[in-house]
Amino acid sequence: LTMPTIIPPDSPALPAAFDILGIAVFALTGALSAAQMRQTFVTVAFFALMTGVGGGTLRDLLIGAPVFWVRDPFVAPVCLAVALLAWFTPVRWWQGRLLEWADALGLAVYSGFGTIKAMAWGVPPVPAMVMGVVTGCVGGIVRDVVAGQPSILMRPELYVTAGALAAAVAAAGLAMGFSPALTWAVAATVGFALRGAAIHWSLGLPAHEGAD
Amino acid sequence: LTMPTIIPPDSPALPAAFDILGIAVFALTGALSAAQMRQTFVTVAFFALMTGVGGGTLRDLLIGAPVFWVRDPFVAPVCLAVALLAWFTPVRWWQGRLLEWADALGLAVYSGFGTIKAMAWGVPPVPAMVMGVVTGCVGGIVRDVVAGQPSILMRPELYVTAGALAAAVAAAGLAMGFSPALTWAVAATVGFALRGAAIHWSLGLPAHEGAD
Amino acid sequence: LTMPTIIPPDSPALPAAFDILGIAVFALTGALSAAQMRQTFVTVAFFALMTGVGGGTLRDLLIGAPVFWVRDPFVAPVCLAVALLAWFTPVRWWQGRLLEWADALGLAVYSGFGTIKAMAWGVPPVPAMVMGVVTGCVGGIVRDVVAGQPSILMRPELYVTAGALAAAVAAAGLAMGFSPALTWAVAATVGFALRGAAIHWSLGLPAHEGAD
Repeated sequence: LTMPTIIPPDSPALPAAFDILGIAVFALTGALSAAQMRQTFVTVAFFALMTGVGGGTLRDLLIGAPVFWVRDPFVAPVCLAVALLAWFTPVRWWQGRLLEWADALGLAVYSGFGTIKAMAWGVPPVPAMVMGVVTGCVGGIVRDVVAGQPSILMRPELYVTAGALAAAVAAAGLAMGFSPALTWAVAATVGFALRGAAIHWSLGLPAHEGAD
Repeated sequence: LTMPTIIPPDSPALPAAFDILGIAVFALTGALSAAQMRQTFVTVAFFALMTGVGGGTLRDLLIGAPVFWVRDPFVAPVCLAVALLAWFTPVRWWQGRLLEWADALGLAVYSGFGTIKAMAWGVPPVPAMVMGVVTGCVGGIVRDVVAGQPSILMRPELYVTAGALAAAVAAAGLAMGFSPALTWAVAATVGFALRGAAIHWSLGLPAHEGAD
Repeated sequence: LTMPTIIPPDSPALPAAFDILGIAVFALTGALSAAQMRQTFVTVAFFALMTGVGGGTLRDLLIGAPVFWVRDPFVAPVCLAVALLAWFTPVRWWQGRLLEWADALGLAVYSGFGTIKAMAWGVPPVPAMVMGVVTGCVGGIVRDVVAGQPSILMRPELYVTAGALAAAVAAAGLAMGFSPALTWAVAATVGFALRGAAIHWSLGLPAHEGAD
């Protein structure tokens, strides 16, 4: 009688615990970024949420799906809990390589997932690949732009590229008829391997030479 | 036959005159920000609109509601009229405390409203609280980011916090079964009191100590 | 059984080849902007896409239409092809006046189109005019904000103004009952003439004198 009910198409999902963990890792990078800029708790919480859910939010708006965290009772509270964790623990606890590797895993897993979800909603392969990159990278881009810092998009390190690789593999796998679960696993592995190699050997892409 | 008609759920609304007044106050802060940066009239008008409707726009996109001002024949013209007002009157007319207090009232009223509207659309309490903060604060954040200035999110003064308080009170009140109108009144009063205290006594939140 | 099918209302469309050409011109300005900032290919591709489809994306989200390029198999590939073109050709090939004039034509044509599409979806004239400005200008604004540069919105040259003129003419023409095709042609011509005059004679708008 009131709102149309949108029944989402079947698409594979992460086990709930892993899904929340992935969002929490992204949220933690946002919260720590705000803490390192010596911000207040409210700002830390805002950055946690923006970074944790930003990419998936834009993806869902673009493909016309209900925004995944708005009707979910757990995602927003977890992001706020992560903000509390970042606020009450020393920043140096989180400055080791563990967070960077967890972020790399989240990037690869969500970039693959974004593409698979988009194709389940009827999006063709190339724009679906874009949706994967958006899912994995836009949270971090918004975090950096709102903070007034050069965004991950503008740095030569292989970050967005690893997300793009995972998304491209996912789109190609589905287009070739492989199952979503297998495709997702391969896509995430390949993307994680590239991002991991970039972290380990400080790999970057060549830059354009500019206008001379 | 063509577009699905979305019948919005009942939710309390401001009397139309007050609603337009609230949007006009937000729009005026955007227009004055552009005027002080010595911009052209077109830029002043763009800032008036962005600041006046930005927060409610993002809230409506996130909860899946039709964007409130797009099909309304009055909201956009009022924002443009505010831009004309800011353009043709001396900026110092508006630099007193009155505008700051009107903005504080708008912040509290709309942060409460955003939460109440979201819960009327079926959003659970914690994400609905986020929707309230988005409604009250995102217009100002977009204004500052597009202007290339440090956003209200990055300043220690109690601004986003007052919006978050109003939104939290609204979510708690509805969750406890109080009527939307009463909840809204209490939420707006509490949020306005906190923002007013912050203006009067220059209160701020403690900042994180950073990474040492 | 699953998703509601939205049958869009009739509205005039550009012949497909011209439409793709217009998006390609916008995408090229984004790609070149990234190349001049000495960015990597992935960043060049992201900027091409953001600039090419950004304005129409926000318009479609605001009016509740399916986002035009997400289910289209050609638009995203064309933006990526433009990024390849910008990457493998010398930037100076593109620094002549031709690109600036092509961008002026795209600005006028899409600003008029955005207004006409919005009115076909039931948006009243003044917000529909805003939708036209959004369509023509937001891609460039996002490009500049993400790049950390002063946006076209903050420069005194007649750019957003020319888009606003085309949009206003389109809204007025439809409101007076002229056919969409005629209205579009007149709106685009007038907007292009103003932008062209601004390029040729370096016209700008007067700026506000600030707060003194």
